[in-house]
Amino acid sequence: MFFSDFQLNPQGLLPVIVQDDTTNEVLMLAYMNEDAYRLTVETGKMTYFSRSRQKLWVKGETSGHFQYVKSLTIDCDLDTLLARVDQVGAACHTGNRTCFFQSVYPQHERS
Amino acid sequence: MFFSDFQLNPQGLLPVIVQDDTTNEVLMLAYMNEDAYRLTVETGKMTYFSRSRQKLWVKGETSGHFQYVKSLTIDCDLDTLLARVDQVGAACHTGNRTCFFQSVYPQHERS
Repeated sequence: MFFSDFQLNPQGLLPVIVQDDTTNEVLMLAYMNEDAYRLTVETGKMTYFSRSRQKLWVKGETSGHFQYVKSLTIDCDLDTLLARVDQVGAACHTGNRTCFFQSVYPQHERS
Repeated sequence: MFFSDFQLNPQGLLPVIVQDDTTNEVLMLAYMNEDAYRLTVETGKMTYFSRSRQKLWVKGETSGHFQYVKSLTIDCDLDTLLARVDQVGAACHTGNRTCFFQSVYPQHERS
C-alpha cells in the first residue's frame, strides 16, 4: 500500500493517531503529507506536517523528544493512520507525557 | 470546559480518537459537532457527525455496536478529543474489533 492509496482530508493531509508502543497510552494527533510519510518510513523517526507552520516537522528535532516508529496501520476507509512509537521523554510541548491531560468528562474529574 | 472552548477544524468539526477502555486498543477516529458532543455527554452513548452523510450518527444505532463513554479528555491545544469507551461488539463496519487492521509498516507485516 502506498501513500497515494490513502484518502486525504480537505487540507490534503492524513491524520495520524500516535500511541505509545509500551504503555498503549494515546499521545497525540498529528498530520502527515506525502513527504512526512516518506521521511517517517525512511528515517524511522515520526515526521509530520505542521499545520501552524506549514512545513515538515521532525518530532523531537528541537526538544530531543523523538518518536521512533514501531508500526503504522491504516484504517478501514484509508483516511487515518495509527502509529505505535517508542517515545523519548514527553510527547507534549507542555512537558506532559501525553497531550491528553485535561479531563472534560465525567465532570467530577475536571481539574 | 465547554464545547465552545474547543478549536474546530476547517470543516467546523472536532476529531475524536476512540480507545477501548478495557484493552487500550485504538478503535477509530471520528468527528463531532456541538450537537454530537452534547448528546454523547447527555446519553452516555458516543455520537458523531457523519462527514459522508452530513448528519448526526449514534454509533451502534443500526448495528447495536454502541460505544458507552467512560471518559473524555481534550488535548493541550484543545483541538482533539480522546474518548475511552466500553465497546459493544466490533467498532468497525467490516466486523473487525478495530478499524485499524491493515498494516503498512514494517513492510514484512503486510498482509
